Amino acid sequence: MSTLRVLGIDPGLTRCGIGVVDVAPDRSAELVHVGVVRSATDAPIERRLATIAAGIRAVLQEHHPDVVAVERVFAQQNRSTVMGTAQASGVALLLAAEHGLAAQTHTPSEVKAAITGYGNADKRQVQTMVARILRLDALPKPADAADALALALCHAWRRGPAPVEKGPLTPAQRAWADAERLARR
Amino acid sequence: MSTLRVLGIDPGLTRCGIGVVDVAPDRSAELVHVGVVRSATDAPIERRLATIAAGIRAVLQEHHPDVVAVERVFAQQNRSTVMGTAQASGVALLLAAEHGLAAQTHTPSEVKAAITGYGNADKRQVQTMVARILRLDALPKPADAADALALALCHAWRRGPAPVEKGPLTPAQRAWADAERLARR
Repeated sequence: MSTLRVLGIDPGLTRCGIGVVDVAPDRSAELVHVGVVRSATDAPIERRLATIAAGIRAVLQEHHPDVVAVERVFAQQNRSTVMGTAQASGVALLLAAEHGLAAQTHTPSEVKAAITGYGNADKRQVQTMVARILRLDALPKPADAADALALALCHAWRRGPAPVEKGPLTPAQRAWADAERLARR
Repeated sequence: MSTLRVLGIDPGLTRCGIGVVDVAPDRSAELVHVGVVRSATDAPIERRLATIAAGIRAVLQEHHPDVVAVERVFAQQNRSTVMGTAQASGVALLLAAEHGLAAQTHTPSEVKAAITGYGNADKRQVQTMVARILRLDALPKPADAADALALALCHAWRRGPAPVEKGPLTPAQRAWADAERLARR
């Protein structure tokens, strides 16, 4: 395994979180990009999706990720926005395919368990752990941006078992090892 | 009002119905294109969406519609496929915007009421009425293709009141007038 560049997308029409991380075989991770694409709530739905698509495309073209991770949307979630979220996720997945990339969806619980060790973790816990893993000075905000980074980290972390670690761990490796242990409890 | 070319899309991953009609100011309508784009159920979701997108793009580029009508998806519908349907609808709406076209969604009840005069009409009734309006020798099949044509006709029909009719009606005008009267009951 070599360093993997993952684009994580937390789909949404009003705010679509986008995060790119490089994850090394030793599981240390570097922040490459984080942001949120917004679209006006009073714009027609087709224009809103085009705005979201333009934002995702810009990141694909600037940062050339190896793979795309998108949050899985469920019909049971918040009824008033779930259809727009699903439509945005369809756009994100389409753009991955059109850039020749594989995409994978992860559920919110899978992401929370991978990052914090607890599938019901709250947004603050996810933000805190993402900041620690990526050695950020501040919590990534808004929560959609943190969720996108968490998705990207989760994707890289789930691709296979950690290599056998030798010698003292770096802080990033310790964060990964801790998260992994917690998630397996 | 001049003749309007409408692309109707009944979104779906396994079968996405696509229909194009020309609707004249006197409400007579001509079939321009009808078809279904299919994607393999065992393909990854991002590839399936790319297949659907390619099919829609081909029709946009060949037939140059003036506007796009997409069936509105509700979370309450069939749970197992509703997310894929919503994702496909997001792709359809995005493609409309990226071709500079406005898009509008219509609910299944709105379409059925516009076409058959009855919001709870069954698929057979919709197919029969679509065939009559477009003077087709056979019922458009599969139902997804008929639904796409019905969506396109519904969209054109809803854009404004019928002009005052003078002289005897053509069969197509009669079909429209009947459908309109029924829908207003």
